[in-house]
Amino acid sequence: MTLVTADMNISLDGYAAGPDQSLSAPFGEGPVDVLSNWMFEAADENAVEIAALNGADAYIMGRNMFGPDRGPLDQDWQGWWGPEPPYHAPVFVLSHYPREPLELTGTTFTFVTDGIDHALGLASRAAGDGRVDIAGGAHTVNEYLSAGLIDELRVHVTPVIIGGGARLFEGVGSIHLEQTGGRAASTVTHLTYRVHSPSPTDPTTENRKST
Amino acid sequence: MTLVTADMNISLDGYAAGPDQSLSAPFGEGPVDVLSNWMFEAADENAVEIAALNGADAYIMGRNMFGPDRGPLDQDWQGWWGPEPPYHAPVFVLSHYPREPLELTGTTFTFVTDGIDHALGLASRAAGDGRVDIAGGAHTVNEYLSAGLIDELRVHVTPVIIGGGARLFEGVGSIHLEQTGGRAASTVTHLTYRVHSPSPTDPTTENRKST
Repeated sequence: MTLVTADMNISLDGYAAGPDQSLSAPFGEGPVDVLSNWMFEAADENAVEIAALNGADAYIMGRNMFGPDRGPLDQDWQGWWGPEPPYHAPVFVLSHYPREPLELTGTTFTFVTDGIDHALGLASRAAGDGRVDIAGGAHTVNEYLSAGLIDELRVHVTPVIIGGGARLFEGVGSIHLEQTGGRAASTVTHLTYRVHSPSPTDPTTENRKST
Repeated sequence: MTLVTADMNISLDGYAAGPDQSLSAPFGEGPVDVLSNWMFEAADENAVEIAALNGADAYIMGRNMFGPDRGPLDQDWQGWWGPEPPYHAPVFVLSHYPREPLELTGTTFTFVTDGIDHALGLASRAAGDGRVDIAGGAHTVNEYLSAGLIDELRVHVTPVIIGGGARLFEGVGSIHLEQTGGRAASTVTHLTYRVHSPSPTDPTTENRKST
């Protein structure tokens, strides 16, 4: 049984990225870079949370997280991460446009055009009894939250206001969350939630995961 | 020197109230009642935070927090709280429309028509070296945040999604926040921030407070 997680770095007003994402501003405009400061500038203090977010057995991401292009996929784009991306696991990229798999050192990006359920099926098969991480961005995580397909959501809140862009939880509907942990570090607060299925007629998420 | 605080109960997606506030739904539609559950259903566990939010020496609130009417003030409305409101201190109500002060047992509501600075001046004078609390709602707190007039913001985040309504931090601009505390209780997370003045030409908020 695969565990499905999502780790999201958000601002205090809920944004994971600012407006106008581009090649020169992958996370959009505004003070977005500080959202990941806790991972790099305070790694020791946040070692437990960093360890928890690394090391998934498969990843799913939206195509806006994979690259700055829109519309048909740029067939030459190799991702943001250089020849050896940090994933070291299969990555499934949600897209409306096809592309052949991209094999880089340790990581293969597979482009999935038929929806979030299919992508999760592929990722779960790759992960087995391990963990699938919904890597982002906010729109993709919102889609999976809304569908009741995430087991554990970890939110890392940095005290900054971004004011616009891609907001976590926007449009997710009435999902049911249970707070299972939380810790305030010096510059970030870590919150952990178990996500319960939104529909009373679908008491577990397992049925949906297998579709 | 008066300390200016604000305590806000918000959902995980940042809302302090749902849409369509009315006489029968003071906090709007949606699962808004759970935002204050931590104060009533888990009072022992959250005793420190409850003690911190009570007992200000003066309060400021928006007129939508005072009553459900809109437009000219209903001159007969006595507030939501019965003959003895819980404030036991002067309360200044921001409104675009005039009304004579309303004296109830232990609390006098004074209606201020000439803006947030004037209301804060009156409240600071009433509080002296004590504390002024910006009691809400989100729109009023956002106005004071945006103006750099709040010293300490305490946010109490309940794991529920409201999805629309009055959102804390909406439109506040680039305020500078410093995380000064945080604690995860079993059903809520308490976050405390020191708010720094937004403008580099106005290094302290004291000048603005005295206007």
